[in-house]
Amino acid sequence: MSVTQEYDLIVIGAGPAGENVADRAVKQGLTAAIVESELAGGECSYWACMPSKALLRPVAATGDARHVQGVAGATLEPAAVLDRRDAFASHWKDDGQVKWLVSAHVDFYRGQGRITGPKTVAVTGADPAELRARHAVAVTTGSGAMIPPVPGLAAARPWTSREATSAHKVPGRLAVIGGGVVGCELATAWQALGTRVTLIARGRLLGHAEEFAGQLVADGLRRAGVDVRAGVSATSVQRPAQGGPVTLELDDGTTVQADEVLAATGRTPRTGDLGLETVGLEPDSWLDVDDTLRVQGVDGGWLYAAGDVNHISLLTHMGKYQARICGDAIAARAHGQEPAVTAWADHSAVPQVIFTQPEVASVGPTAAQAQAAGRNIRVVDYDLGAVAGSKLFADGYTGQARMVVDEDRRTMIGATLAGPGAGELIHAATVAVAGEVPLDRLWHAVPSFPTMSEIWLRLLEAYGL
Amino acid sequence: MSVTQEYDLIVIGAGPAGENVADRAVKQGLTAAIVESELAGGECSYWACMPSKALLRPVAATGDARHVQGVAGATLEPAAVLDRRDAFASHWKDDGQVKWLVSAHVDFYRGQGRITGPKTVAVTGADPAELRARHAVAVTTGSGAMIPPVPGLAAARPWTSREATSAHKVPGRLAVIGGGVVGCELATAWQALGTRVTLIARGRLLGHAEEFAGQLVADGLRRAGVDVRAGVSATSVQRPAQGGPVTLELDDGTTVQADEVLAATGRTPRTGDLGLETVGLEPDSWLDVDDTLRVQGVDGGWLYAAGDVNHISLLTHMGKYQARICGDAIAARAHGQEPAVTAWADHSAVPQVIFTQPEVASVGPTAAQAQAAGRNIRVVDYDLGAVAGSKLFADGYTGQARMVVDEDRRTMIGATLAGPGAGELIHAATVAVAGEVPLDRLWHAVPSFPTMSEIWLRLLEAYGL
Repeated sequence: MSVTQEYDLIVIGAGPAGENVADRAVKQGLTAAIVESELAGGECSYWACMPSKALLRPVAATGDARHVQGVAGATLEPAAVLDRRDAFASHWKDDGQVKWLVSAHVDFYRGQGRITGPKTVAVTGADPAELRARHAVAVTTGSGAMIPPVPGLAAARPWTSREATSAHKVPGRLAVIGGGVVGCELATAWQALGTRVTLIARGRLLGHAEEFAGQLVADGLRRAGVDVRAGVSATSVQRPAQGGPVTLELDDGTTVQADEVLAATGRTPRTGDLGLETVGLEPDSWLDVDDTLRVQGVDGGWLYAAGDVNHISLLTHMGKYQARICGDAIAARAHGQEPAVTAWADHSAVPQVIFTQPEVASVGPTAAQAQAAGRNIRVVDYDLGAVAGSKLFADGYTGQARMVVDEDRRTMIGATLAGPGAGELIHAATVAVAGEVPLDRLWHAVPSFPTMSEIWLRLLEAYGL
Repeated sequence: MSVTQEYDLIVIGAGPAGENVADRAVKQGLTAAIVESELAGGECSYWACMPSKALLRPVAATGDARHVQGVAGATLEPAAVLDRRDAFASHWKDDGQVKWLVSAHVDFYRGQGRITGPKTVAVTGADPAELRARHAVAVTTGSGAMIPPVPGLAAARPWTSREATSAHKVPGRLAVIGGGVVGCELATAWQALGTRVTLIARGRLLGHAEEFAGQLVADGLRRAGVDVRAGVSATSVQRPAQGGPVTLELDDGTTVQADEVLAATGRTPRTGDLGLETVGLEPDSWLDVDDTLRVQGVDGGWLYAAGDVNHISLLTHMGKYQARICGDAIAARAHGQEPAVTAWADHSAVPQVIFTQPEVASVGPTAAQAQAAGRNIRVVDYDLGAVAGSKLFADGYTGQARMVVDEDRRTMIGATLAGPGAGELIHAATVAVAGEVPLDRLWHAVPSFPTMSEIWLRLLEAYGL
């Protein structure tokens, strides 16, 4: 028996984006319900960021310790690492998240949420209900792994990011198809845990990043023992019906045998079973939004989409950023006002940290992207390993830094750092980019000696300040 | 036999400040000589930042590794740590620095430099010379350790920061007098290397920092095994003339025995033997400067002072900052112009990282300092251990963060972070403070998930954004 309930806002998808949309709206006086077909907390909490970083942090801590003379004996214990990961994934139980939703005064419905028409959502599953939104519906269902159309792959029971972040056994051999963030991070983790990893990438690694970053990550993976095959594609995959290893044929004529194969070649929107067709939208497509996260082409403007599902930036922190702005926009309009803040950073200041060894951290466009966008730029490069703080951090530190400067405005618009421990260095650049701080002013932001952050001084000096 | 040479600029003291003053001036077309009575590279390179951080980094790497489940066996090897420190102190040889000076086209004079009158400097020692400055003389002689007037201390052959950063044997017991940065850092290092350390502090630890930072460092030292005695002073120190342990009597009636005693209670200017009296200045005093680093009260304005010796901020990176501005100012005036850039950060955006366990990183005034200065502030606190990136960084992460907001201008003017790995997080705040980025704009500086830098988002949320 389903009940009918009315809320100011109905959110479909209880990942970080959905939770933040609901929370912001409730804090501004709205009532809200959230619908989740799997676990409250979403992909990030159970099958992506949290478990992958729980696997990768011990790898980094071990690597960091091993590169400091005077520290001996640091070794990775795979079983303990997997236990740690289980704890960070809350053992795939969402009690904590559900409790948080209750404390945030958001009503939780467990089940599949489907739009049935303007401002109406039907929930089927554990908590069946007919929900009606007074003001808005927000879709925050995220994305799922894409299985590329390689003959035999789908039938070979491939791992996706889900299995690769939640597996409880260390496979003997793992073939990774895809040289992007997911492929590189999970190759790093499993190789360190004892798996022999082969990484198969159609092009160079980390194709969206500065080329030097992909090169340093490829070097790092090879040093760790990963068989990196760049510029190669799988043409077929076979796994015997009765089980056993998979065999991949590659377009360079070689073959790879592995116990598991990970498909890490991209994402698809989770919009197939949302009832989008009832309001004139295309199922299985990404949702186009404006700067207040309102979905385009829906009469009445009551539908919003934040996070992966709008395809702007498939990153948890950008999903949360959009969610804050989306929740605020919904609340403002419910109160008869226009939103004061729109999603500026989506276009100009997207940061990303890739937790490989070395780490890669970036914000804003790469040099190539800025050039393609017609910006008048100057590129400044500096050896991250030449900074005193880096030398102290790790003996024989290897890394590289790049700053992209808009010459017309004399501001930093992009930056990329690759090196051990680089992940925490990038937020300084994100503040500079988002704050549009002139270089002449950045000159007075003195980095502490001897930290790695002195790279920002070196880049300004190299620019000519 | 001494020669007479003329230069546009004469610099006395070849530490980081002196090197940067000379380098900046030469890059703008001036000729320059630099005089050094000890080693080119200065205190920082041989007896301060570099060797102390070379000792402390292995301690941090070991501590970080031990706090990640899945990493086993990380142990400190004291002999290897001391070897590493020796390498970072270039084995107390300055060949590399002298070579750098040559490459920077700065003439190097080894010897004691003394001002003999306006724009003239006599060098006695290895490279005797009479030097004449066409435009300016810069004093960058830094500071030395102060031995506090505790009866018997000076006669007990105490360690200063010099011995404590360059010692080749790990003492069995070390008594540290002073709970400031030097005392806390070196207590951290030697306790980790096997010494039983007693830390004697007149007041609370890190008295210039936010109180929670000193408390967390005291907790960390105690956990590491240091006998922290805060609120206590030494009243006498005795070491038998024939050698053997020192005995300290404290004003709480207790005594401490130790093999070495470290005096870490402050610094004195190195201006005693510079000939300052020949140009109307007081020897042994700090040198008062304006925002272009020009010494006050000297006719003709030809004397400059950068770094510790002007007593503005006794920090290498601020000395280097001043040196860049000083070198530029000297060059500008030599070319008949007024300096374009003055030392703004000296007053408003001084960052500092203390490499204890936990680390303490700060920029700008503390809450108490801002209040004392009459600013209309709001203080925002947040548990640094509650951020996902911190939990991932170390199991059971303990830390604390504070942001000081100027409510009239709605900008961050100060921040303090205490916690493992906090040192590289502070530069983001330094950019915000130096850039005077409005909080509403900082809202678009999205920290990457899951990094510790998300603390900056949490602080803004806690503020009410």
